[in-house]
Amino acid sequence: MSYLGVGVSPGNVPVYHGTSLKGVDRRVRLAELILRCAICGLGVLAAVLVGTDTQVLEIFSMEKKARFTDMKALVFLVIANIIAAAYSFLQGVRCVVGMVRGSILFNKPLAWAIFSGDQVMAYLTVAAVATAAQSSVYAKLGQSELQWMKICNMYGKFCNQVGEGVLSALLVSLSMVALSCISAFGLFRLYGSSKVKNKERW
Amino acid sequence: MSYLGVGVSPGNVPVYHGTSLKGVDRRVRLAELILRCAICGLGVLAAVLVGTDTQVLEIFSMEKKARFTDMKALVFLVIANIIAAAYSFLQGVRCVVGMVRGSILFNKPLAWAIFSGDQVMAYLTVAAVATAAQSSVYAKLGQSELQWMKICNMYGKFCNQVGEGVLSALLVSLSMVALSCISAFGLFRLYGSSKVKNKERW
Repeated sequence: MSYLGVGVSPGNVPVYHGTSLKGVDRRVRLAELILRCAICGLGVLAAVLVGTDTQVLEIFSMEKKARFTDMKALVFLVIANIIAAAYSFLQGVRCVVGMVRGSILFNKPLAWAIFSGDQVMAYLTVAAVATAAQSSVYAKLGQSELQWMKICNMYGKFCNQVGEGVLSALLVSLSMVALSCISAFGLFRLYGSSKVKNKERW
Repeated sequence: MSYLGVGVSPGNVPVYHGTSLKGVDRRVRLAELILRCAICGLGVLAAVLVGTDTQVLEIFSMEKKARFTDMKALVFLVIANIIAAAYSFLQGVRCVVGMVRGSILFNKPLAWAIFSGDQVMAYLTVAAVATAAQSSVYAKLGQSELQWMKICNMYGKFCNQVGEGVLSALLVSLSMVALSCISAFGLFRLYGSSKVKNKERW
């Protein structure tokens, strides 16, 4: 029995646990496309929200301007989200072309490339959002033991907009994690056989 | 042709790209065991290095003690590495039992549980090491725009030991990432068939 209905005539579509495998593949690819579009949009949104965020404060007739470049973690967040959005745009185009052509991915080098790219992006976006969230906690609450003072009581508007950007980046990283699972499925199913699944269990 | 040589007689071991699949499975399982042992050891090392690190400084006849609890990111790092070490110990025991029994994993719910656990651990350890590394950069270089002063010029010995702990935690997270790929392979190969691989390429 061939998986995904490749090379079989209509009316003889292979069935796996009661579901058409070609249908499963179509749904997986649609989920992939939706996630890639979401990452592209949310990544740009996160980068714009954090990257354009400024607030000017007047202290004793001196102007002090808060910018995202004042905090290394926010610079990392902006860069990571721009990279994730650009990567997802390119992968989204590949996905649309694949859907239009109705082809199924059986090219192992390409599947390895997609899997590797998605893995790198997932860990990159998770690391970026973790560092930004940690730095935001320092900015919001301070770290009195180290005499790192809280700054959000002075730059409230700036901090709120950064918070929205971090939330958007969190959604990007969660979507990238889901995508990395989908591309792992796409790659490693090429290495297996469903025929042995009931022969030995552990 | 059955994958991994299950249910075939000796002398008729299936071959995939010139390699015995049972041999591939044995090597994958051995790599998994080595990685789980490494994570267990390095996770404990990282937690001990950071968790026991202290330095007392005398400033104007006042004693000031630096501890890992002074920095939220280090508390997160210690907790994440203890969890990763305990998890890897349990998974390592399962791995040894599986190797002794010579059985191959075809139980989908168990494969899903291992895959999910490894994914959570991989992202948890990466997030922990990223936040700790980011906080270490603040501690080492300071962030003058926010008036967060550098502290490593005062607590040099403390910072060096934290650095060693973060390095150990970085190795833990890289090992967890590799393991999450191995468990993805172990799960998703159960959903595929190698028989269709040459029929259609994209």
